[in-house]
Amino acid sequence: MRKVAIVGVGMSKFGEEWNRGFRDLIIEAGVRALEDANISGADLDGLFCGTMAPGNLVGQEHTAALIADFMGLNPIPATRVEAACASGGLALRTGYMAIASGMHDAVVVGGVEKMTDVSGGLVSEALGGAGDQEWELFQGATFPAIYAMMARRHMMEFGTTEEQMAAVAVKNHLNASKNKYAHFQNEITIDQVMKSKMVASPLKVFDCSPVSDGAAAVVLVPLENAKKYSKDPIEIVASAQASDTLALHDRQSLTSIHATQEATRKLFSLANMTTKDIDVVEVHDCFTIAEIMALEDIGFFKKGEGGGATAEGRTALNAEISVNTSGGLKGCGHPVGATGVKQAVEIAWQLRGVAGARQVKDAEIGMTHNVGGSGATCVMHILKRV
Amino acid sequence: MRKVAIVGVGMSKFGEEWNRGFRDLIIEAGVRALEDANISGADLDGLFCGTMAPGNLVGQEHTAALIADFMGLNPIPATRVEAACASGGLALRTGYMAIASGMHDAVVVGGVEKMTDVSGGLVSEALGGAGDQEWELFQGATFPAIYAMMARRHMMEFGTTEEQMAAVAVKNHLNASKNKYAHFQNEITIDQVMKSKMVASPLKVFDCSPVSDGAAAVVLVPLENAKKYSKDPIEIVASAQASDTLALHDRQSLTSIHATQEATRKLFSLANMTTKDIDVVEVHDCFTIAEIMALEDIGFFKKGEGGGATAEGRTALNAEISVNTSGGLKGCGHPVGATGVKQAVEIAWQLRGVAGARQVKDAEIGMTHNVGGSGATCVMHILKRV
Repeated sequence: MRKVAIVGVGMSKFGEEWNRGFRDLIIEAGVRALEDANISGADLDGLFCGTMAPGNLVGQEHTAALIADFMGLNPIPATRVEAACASGGLALRTGYMAIASGMHDAVVVGGVEKMTDVSGGLVSEALGGAGDQEWELFQGATFPAIYAMMARRHMMEFGTTEEQMAAVAVKNHLNASKNKYAHFQNEITIDQVMKSKMVASPLKVFDCSPVSDGAAAVVLVPLENAKKYSKDPIEIVASAQASDTLALHDRQSLTSIHATQEATRKLFSLANMTTKDIDVVEVHDCFTIAEIMALEDIGFFKKGEGGGATAEGRTALNAEISVNTSGGLKGCGHPVGATGVKQAVEIAWQLRGVAGARQVKDAEIGMTHNVGGSGATCVMHILKRV
Repeated sequence: MRKVAIVGVGMSKFGEEWNRGFRDLIIEAGVRALEDANISGADLDGLFCGTMAPGNLVGQEHTAALIADFMGLNPIPATRVEAACASGGLALRTGYMAIASGMHDAVVVGGVEKMTDVSGGLVSEALGGAGDQEWELFQGATFPAIYAMMARRHMMEFGTTEEQMAAVAVKNHLNASKNKYAHFQNEITIDQVMKSKMVASPLKVFDCSPVSDGAAAVVLVPLENAKKYSKDPIEIVASAQASDTLALHDRQSLTSIHATQEATRKLFSLANMTTKDIDVVEVHDCFTIAEIMALEDIGFFKKGEGGGATAEGRTALNAEISVNTSGGLKGCGHPVGATGVKQAVEIAWQLRGVAGARQVKDAEIGMTHNVGGSGATCVMHILKRV
């Protein structure tokens, strides 16, 4: 297997982008990544794209070929992958495999979702397809309800509080306020979160990531060729993926994401690293409780201590471990197919040292953690400054 | 890159399977493939699945993880790929890449679609997402209309006749009548095709592949390990993929599928073969004109001569080149995500010599040709008896 490097990154503004459609968003991100890599489309030999529900959200399938078409990349092989909210991370992994295998020599990996062109009810229904349609969505369990059950159980087992969950949102908004690409660029307070409208008790509006439009892209080449394209390439040291049951009721625990634990184990084994090696991490905070569980399942904190650690500021920028410097899904926004790729874009910026006001000091090794549904898929990567 | 072999194959009955859902179909195919490979689920380390529009057709995304869940394969990495009607072929290619890369040592590749649980209008709309939604479907151009334009132009440029197109359907129904898994197992006549209801002139109902339910699966391992699982493994000699514009109006030709021509060129170059080496081929006959164009674009016949060759019987079982022995999409049925994998299952059976009444004599090398939409994706494979 060949080693793989990221040599270009780019993203669109995340947010309610009413003036731009699916095609505009991904082309903007893709062109930025190509320009950043100083690579011509003619030198690419593969395109991989993660997007979750374009069939329901914009009436379009076959989206990888569509992107190749509108980027002028035909007849490039173009592959869409989908694993709900982990579609972007999975696209990165598939692109990584394409380069590692030797079947491709330069690929662009994109993630995109256009979510705000349909009504909220239709978005909830489309996102509900990430869970077990027959056992969850059909019975009325949309995602806030599913994560609310996890949160309640976490509170019961470990004494996690609503204020601790609110602290996740406050930190991520603070980071997002330093990110010009973020959906939300306003700081919020614990009090605002606590007083925000209840969605599914104990989760309030400010515990939930927003419905966003957006796209992100990276260019991958074999590490041995990386310096041809970039003066500061980023190596993808390891890639890991795991699955679990779609339905929550089939799991042994409501307070751990088993797929995260499995992917973490494989990832650290492949990279020969531990949590101590990680300087900066983007975790999947679709709801505030999800960030707390991720920090515990990856092993940054013991099970049950993620909420307290967050409230104590240990996950803030340049604290013990810098978590979600982009603003995370909560602050930066969550165009579902784009999120996993955006995580890699943010880590690449951190490792290059170009993250500006949200820069983690001397960041050398970073991690991405992307979850599909309530944890039926987890895709993780470790990135390193070359 | 490692060489890759198919060591197990299986499929469900294709058809209007009202008593079986999405999960039942793919599990039936998957279990058959695992049993055929004599492999335990515990020995698999990857699952790849092609399915086009489960979000619209059964309200479910995240389908690879769902299949892993219901097959009891968690925490296996589970990846869905989508390229419209080429989703199955693309899943095979992605599984091939997974083994070739060395990242996986034994994977199951499935394709599945459950199409008959929604009304015909909704199916047309879901399938329309394979084309350019903004420039085609939104304007009323569903797929019969798009292929009808190609057929009309082919008739004008080359004198292809409606009777020649009908001959494709008659041949494929004859082959399907010998296939117990086929959606249609009845022979038809040229006269019946000619007198069938007009859908989009010149295409009549019997020129169109049906809306079907079904699934197919194969097990892949490195060729060097293949004999551990199967006494008659099938090597995947080459895999190729190409893209083109989604919208027909952006193409230089209406009578050629450029992605097929590009994929063919790469495929034969990788395999160091020509059409003369191929004993049996499954081509993508979503409409009868599509089979004629495929035979020409791959190079079995000169451009414009595919219709005449078919009418003369040169593509019949054990004639000059045996085309669509399974019955093709027209006779065997077209559960869109399943089709590309079913093509590989049929070729594997042919190369093993177990195809019964539809066996091609001394078949040693076979080919699959899977198209997405009106040709925006083409995925092709060459398979060989080891």
